[in-house]
Amino acid sequence: MSKNGTTVDELSLGPVVDQLFEAAATLTRTRSTHGRIVLPSRDAVLDGMEALRSVFYPGYFGTSDVHDQSLHYHIGATLDRLLRTLDEQVRRSVAFIERHDYESCTHCATRGDEVKRAFLARLPEVRRLLATDITAAYEGDPALKHLDEAIFSYPGVYAITNQRVAHELYVLDVPLLPRMITEAAKTVTGIDIHPGARIGEKFFIDHGTGVVVGETSIIGANVRLYQGVTLGAKSFPLDEHGNPIKGIDRHPIVEDDVVIYSGATVLGRITVGKGSSIGGNVWLTHSVPPGSRITQNDSK
Amino acid sequence: MSKNGTTVDELSLGPVVDQLFEAAATLTRTRSTHGRIVLPSRDAVLDGMEALRSVFYPGYFGTSDVHDQSLHYHIGATLDRLLRTLDEQVRRSVAFIERHDYESCTHCATRGDEVKRAFLARLPEVRRLLATDITAAYEGDPALKHLDEAIFSYPGVYAITNQRVAHELYVLDVPLLPRMITEAAKTVTGIDIHPGARIGEKFFIDHGTGVVVGETSIIGANVRLYQGVTLGAKSFPLDEHGNPIKGIDRHPIVEDDVVIYSGATVLGRITVGKGSSIGGNVWLTHSVPPGSRITQNDSK
Amino acid sequence: MSKNGTTVDELSLGPVVDQLFEAAATLTRTRSTHGRIVLPSRDAVLDGMEALRSVFYPGYFGTSDVHDQSLHYHIGATLDRLLRTLDEQVRRSVAFIERHDYESCTHCATRGDEVKRAFLARLPEVRRLLATDITAAYEGDPALKHLDEAIFSYPGVYAITNQRVAHELYVLDVPLLPRMITEAAKTVTGIDIHPGARIGEKFFIDHGTGVVVGETSIIGANVRLYQGVTLGAKSFPLDEHGNPIKGIDRHPIVEDDVVIYSGATVLGRITVGKGSSIGGNVWLTHSVPPGSRITQNDSK
Amino acid sequence: MSKNGTTVDELSLGPVVDQLFEAAATLTRTRSTHGRIVLPSRDAVLDGMEALRSVFYPGYFGTSDVHDQSLHYHIGATLDRLLRTLDEQVRRSVAFIERHDYESCTHCATRGDEVKRAFLARLPEVRRLLATDITAAYEGDPALKHLDEAIFSYPGVYAITNQRVAHELYVLDVPLLPRMITEAAKTVTGIDIHPGARIGEKFFIDHGTGVVVGETSIIGANVRLYQGVTLGAKSFPLDEHGNPIKGIDRHPIVEDDVVIYSGATVLGRITVGKGSSIGGNVWLTHSVPPGSRITQNDSK
Amino acid sequence: MSKNGTTVDELSLGPVVDQLFEAAATLTRTRSTHGRIVLPSRDAVLDGMEALRSVFYPGYFGTSDVHDQSLHYHIGATLDRLLRTLDEQVRRSVAFIERHDYESCTHCATRGDEVKRAFLARLPEVRRLLATDITAAYEGDPALKHLDEAIFSYPGVYAITNQRVAHELYVLDVPLLPRMITEAAKTVTGIDIHPGARIGEKFFIDHGTGVVVGETSIIGANVRLYQGVTLGAKSFPLDEHGNPIKGIDRHPIVEDDVVIYSGATVLGRITVGKGSSIGGNVWLTHSVPPGSRITQNDSK
Amino acid sequence: MSKNGTTVDELSLGPVVDQLFEAAATLTRTRSTHGRIVLPSRDAVLDGMEALRSVFYPGYFGTSDVHDQSLHYHIGATLDRLLRTLDEQVRRSVAFIERHDYESCTHCATRGDEVKRAFLARLPEVRRLLATDITAAYEGDPALKHLDEAIFSYPGVYAITNQRVAHELYVLDVPLLPRMITEAAKTVTGIDIHPGARIGEKFFIDHGTGVVVGETSIIGANVRLYQGVTLGAKSFPLDEHGNPIKGIDRHPIVEDDVVIYSGATVLGRITVGKGSSIGGNVWLTHSVPPGSRITQNDSK
Repeated sequence: MSKNGTTVDELSLGPVVDQLFEAAATLTRTRSTHGRIVLPSRDAVLDGMEALRSVFYPGYFGTSDVHDQSLHYHIGATLDRLLRTLDEQVRRSVAFIERHDYESCTHCATRGDEVKRAFLARLPEVRRLLATDITAAYEGDPALKHLDEAIFSYPGVYAITNQRVAHELYVLDVPLLPRMITEAAKTVTGIDIHPGARIGEKFFIDHGTGVVVGETSIIGANVRLYQGVTLGAKSFPLDEHGNPIKGIDRHPIVEDDVVIYSGATVLGRITVGKGSSIGGNVWLTHSVPPGSRITQNDSK
Repeated sequence: MSKNGTTVDELSLGPVVDQLFEAAATLTRTRSTHGRIVLPSRDAVLDGMEALRSVFYPGYFGTSDVHDQSLHYHIGATLDRLLRTLDEQVRRSVAFIERHDYESCTHCATRGDEVKRAFLARLPEVRRLLATDITAAYEGDPALKHLDEAIFSYPGVYAITNQRVAHELYVLDVPLLPRMITEAAKTVTGIDIHPGARIGEKFFIDHGTGVVVGETSIIGANVRLYQGVTLGAKSFPLDEHGNPIKGIDRHPIVEDDVVIYSGATVLGRITVGKGSSIGGNVWLTHSVPPGSRITQNDSK
Repeated sequence: MSKNGTTVDELSLGPVVDQLFEAAATLTRTRSTHGRIVLPSRDAVLDGMEALRSVFYPGYFGTSDVHDQSLHYHIGATLDRLLRTLDEQVRRSVAFIERHDYESCTHCATRGDEVKRAFLARLPEVRRLLATDITAAYEGDPALKHLDEAIFSYPGVYAITNQRVAHELYVLDVPLLPRMITEAAKTVTGIDIHPGARIGEKFFIDHGTGVVVGETSIIGANVRLYQGVTLGAKSFPLDEHGNPIKGIDRHPIVEDDVVIYSGATVLGRITVGKGSSIGGNVWLTHSVPPGSRITQNDSK
Repeated sequence: MSKNGTTVDELSLGPVVDQLFEAAATLTRTRSTHGRIVLPSRDAVLDGMEALRSVFYPGYFGTSDVHDQSLHYHIGATLDRLLRTLDEQVRRSVAFIERHDYESCTHCATRGDEVKRAFLARLPEVRRLLATDITAAYEGDPALKHLDEAIFSYPGVYAITNQRVAHELYVLDVPLLPRMITEAAKTVTGIDIHPGARIGEKFFIDHGTGVVVGETSIIGANVRLYQGVTLGAKSFPLDEHGNPIKGIDRHPIVEDDVVIYSGATVLGRITVGKGSSIGGNVWLTHSVPPGSRITQNDSK
Repeated sequence: MSKNGTTVDELSLGPVVDQLFEAAATLTRTRSTHGRIVLPSRDAVLDGMEALRSVFYPGYFGTSDVHDQSLHYHIGATLDRLLRTLDEQVRRSVAFIERHDYESCTHCATRGDEVKRAFLARLPEVRRLLATDITAAYEGDPALKHLDEAIFSYPGVYAITNQRVAHELYVLDVPLLPRMITEAAKTVTGIDIHPGARIGEKFFIDHGTGVVVGETSIIGANVRLYQGVTLGAKSFPLDEHGNPIKGIDRHPIVEDDVVIYSGATVLGRITVGKGSSIGGNVWLTHSVPPGSRITQNDSK
Repeated sequence: MSKNGTTVDELSLGPVVDQLFEAAATLTRTRSTHGRIVLPSRDAVLDGMEALRSVFYPGYFGTSDVHDQSLHYHIGATLDRLLRTLDEQVRRSVAFIERHDYESCTHCATRGDEVKRAFLARLPEVRRLLATDITAAYEGDPALKHLDEAIFSYPGVYAITNQRVAHELYVLDVPLLPRMITEAAKTVTGIDIHPGARIGEKFFIDHGTGVVVGETSIIGANVRLYQGVTLGAKSFPLDEHGNPIKGIDRHPIVEDDVVIYSGATVLGRITVGKGSSIGGNVWLTHSVPPGSRITQNDSK
């Protein structure tokens, strides 16, 4: 008898389908039982992020052969498409999270429009900050031979570009999208900066794999991090149901001109004073004053 | 004379082709010299994994707009396609690894069919475990505002989904495929859990970049890991030819309710007792009793 | 009134376009104000790298069903395409970095041709080194059941393949492309080896996430690294303008037969003597003699 | 000076952009000046048509390897997706044609839902008719060796499948979509049957390039057409503005069992009586009684 | 209530799914009820045809930048891939048409191998004939300014290339594939030449839309056809069941040096003698001697 | 023995490769034996044509959701990309046809630039003519219910859009590209209008399959053609080598306000006088005065 032929009928697909259906029903029980649900599209969001990269760094991403006259057209057309996408994806995200019917939720549509406008107004400032980050990369890495290379292939520049964009959406209280944008950067670079982190000018991350910067971190100007650095939470208080209380400040404050070397772990709402240097693999859970030099114990 | 024209003739492509051909011949000497070889297709395997994700989390992956009636059809059709893919890829993998001719190896075809059936039967249990993981994510992360977000964009959930699927194939002794599935999750998330690891309910990994969980690890229920945690092997005995002896238990046993903080390294067939907490960057190579609190030495 | 309709006119796209245009002008001020600029294509470069993988490991990547006679044709045709791509991309890179007009820069075209020839001549040696790396993977990992699996899905093998290729271009002083190739491997594997690192035979990296190997590192034969290992620079001298002086030897020399365990950080132009073993999470900033066994202090 | 460099600035793109903008404004003046316009997506419509083909002819289009049990799931899941697409595209078409804002037009949304339901109910009958067409193809073409081939690669079967589907939408008064579906078939087959044509069972077109069947044609059962046949309008009355009066019956009625040979042209609201045969290249503008045999004059 | 929400449950998808399932069962009743069925892949077949075009016309299709040395490699690698595809698709076609299980049908596999070999041996002759066709195009069309253009964009050359390839498979009695190849050419060019037609050297079709050449046509050397020409069957005898008797010679024989102008219809097993000219729109159903000049009656 | 295994070695691929190589060498003998050849890219040309369609008919092709402000940006950015493509493809075409090295042919580069500028200047006039064609379609077809539909899915509008664009390039003496553009329209619509044809305002083709309009045709304003109409050459004089003399006026002149019905064939440099009507299937080879009504003889 043929290998695949009659046996498939005996596969008993039916019962497993039923069980997985039951499991899905449980999952979606928390969702609206009526109304149309349209998830935000990860692809649309990430294409929008790439469009933004080509607007921030024309000639490096997207069409490379741009000139003065046509650049105006390209920036305008790209922004227009991008804002349309943003409007739609914000609307979807709000409807999804708030369990509203996508079609009839006028509040959701209004939010899309508002976010689009507010986001547009912030773009020049985001662009200004990114220019300082690129300068920091060039100044901070002796292996960097051309400024172009920082824009073109530096994971730290890639990650901070995504984070600064995601942060604007976070501040506007957009659900889901900010995290999609930073997770995408993490997949490419291994750098995991929460959209909530507030980061000053001239931020530079070298190599970067394993860097984690938590939601309520505050980072001053001219800060440099190396691979494997964690700015994390030490522990977090639980509410009466044993669930973590959301939204408490629980990550470090890193002041201006600090360098944190590879593998260092800085935990809790502590302050690393201006100009400090935190050595590689250091484990730090208390505040240190400006100008501190913290290093690990010797190995043997 | 034109730049690219006549010079290509003098490129001496021939000798290099011959040398690379010789090198390839050496490589393939270990392979069957007769019979047809068809490698498993990484794309087919990973598409299958995505199909499974849409079956486990309908409405979050794949088509988002699903309803009670049509969901049955979607789960059934997706599973059917998936199992067909699995059958074929298992057959290829077995033939490839055992150096059999793909066409004539009836043993390989039988294995494909057997694995398909056994795997199908396990899906409800895999789904049940994943539901507990999602709960754990929600309970364990104060930055998580919506349960949806755990399913939608948490790397820990993504990675454990792939690992639990890969583990089923590992238990069924399927070659090559389990590792493809966990490697794919590692590329996306930076989390590297070997398909062989046995992992209990309510497993949660936060951030996750750099997490390594070795092949013979055993992890209890309600365990939480942070980024950069290694559950590794200390060393391994060599056989008389100096090759490592394969298949020896050499990774840690982590009991229920353990938390291991970022950067901690736990090595060898040691036991971390129930309810213990292992601090960040700790280097641990001996068993610790239940309820232990292990922390690193101070930095200076 | 309709949601998206008339409001778009009031979006004030114009002023933001103007500001982003100004910002871009600043960015491109450093670039040539005349002449055509054509950036190298990341997609073309990475497709070329995949083509090379299919030439190095025929039957494992690319077409799997290859035979003696046809393999000659496949290697030849693939190499020919690859070299054409390389020629073009080198030409673009040189023109871009040296701010020359792509069309009229004969120097750039000549460089493309020279690099193509020199690179071709090196391929057999690169292939020979990679064969030793595969052997090292098989010997070094007890979880590896089949030699095929090392080629097929080991991140360490993937990363060193890219790096050895990128290193050849680095030695030929090709701008931009070497880094693209190693960054691509980093995204897939989390392993970050600078194209400049000089690496001996039988190099093996296990797991690998978070590994960083700096530009001026020198690694002997038969060296094994685990995940999270850094071979980095301790600090670097600044020039009179406060910029780091480029090109100074500042990363470790690791001699033959050294093993460096997970999370260890080795910094500066120090030497790790032949046959040494550096323990997990160790922080090492001074040279150690041959045969050293370095371990971390205990945790408590 | 470089070829492409500075000259682009002198291209005077601006004035041409302005003129084309003016022209477009004229074009869109007839469209709604407020509200969001979303055109139906040709790709979505044609993908839907292909999905339907796989439902009508499972095993010939779409997934070929279908079995009794899984076929149910596949038909159900495919139909569900298809109906969702149809709903959306009908809504867009109605809003577009009636110059309504897509978002706020509840009438448009209602029409989408109604069409979806009515169309679903008609699918079994459409399927039944297509089965008779396939039989007719097999009986009518001596070059056809296998019934499978009629389904698989006969342009006549392809075209009538699209037309019967488009006709259902035409009857439901859906704008734009019916024509998209028949135009797509025309591009593939060269057969141009208007969605409005009413066509009986067992319809067969051989070769088919150049066949044109007009909007108000009525075709009985068991009719066979060859390539280049036109069932057209002779002339049409104009209204007081000199525009053609829309919707008048102006194409032929072809009764049962008629054969019309290649290149014949049949024009006007005439009747070709049951069982007639119209010879190749004949030009026919008057009704003919049942059983007629019409042939062209001789050539010389 | 939301538009799409609860209503979908009332869609009654179920009954329609059941009816379409029944219809499909009827269709597949004629197929094997056991065994695996794998249809030939249209995409694979047509990709193979494109590969062949790049082998016949290197530098015009596929990679344009080919040189002496590398051309050998490219032709060899392309042919090797192509033959592999052919082998597989022939095997599928034979198993499908003969209702055998794809896996276990050794006869089918043998046929794949045989066809591959026989086809390979015929390629040089096919190539030789095509060279004569290109010459004929250049000689026959005053609008053709460059020989390159004939290869590059002439529909007649495109169509005869496909037909000559399909004819080789037809002669080898391969099911389904020959027709796929000629139908694909028909979609692109509007020229419909049956794979069975036997066509001599220097065949040229100008414009070509609507040309139909039937299965048993025999065409001599140096024949030229214009658009809309039919070489068809007049009628065909039925067997005792009223089905057309398959395989009877029923299309014209066109001898050397004949020209047939646009729209002419030539029907039945008649002979158009050497050197004849058949005028536009002529309807011809009887043999004409060599040197005939046939024209249509006048219009009035 | 396995089916595909050892037999491939005996396939004798080598001799066939050699013969096809020889044949290709013959073909390329007419091409330059030195210098780099880069064929124009059909995909790039056709993408450019689609871009132009979105500029001519914004809101119908390309992005549908366009508004006053953003439309300026979109037209500008699209034109800029399009002109860049045109420049490059013209350069390739000229170098290819004139057998120059692509890299070093400054004449070719200059031609690309010149054509780009001249073409840009003509776009407003092309756009103006197309607006008249759309009006003609609406006035000429009683089945057309919405003006939108003429733009959106009328083959006649599609074909004349491509031809008017191609004609501009023809007038500028660009090789290869004009024909690519009209051939692409022919594949979609079955309408074959040579780029050389000079066509007045308000041109309408209904259905269109099989329409052929020759290179030197001259068509006045307000002309309407139906499917299957040929405006062709009767015969053409040969030069002393028996080759057709290129470039002679040999196709009809059709004056204003003429209608030519389906299947009519009009051949030679004759004139169809203003306001004439040529009946279906008529064969016309002599001039007719203004106001003529030509019909076919009766059938019997």
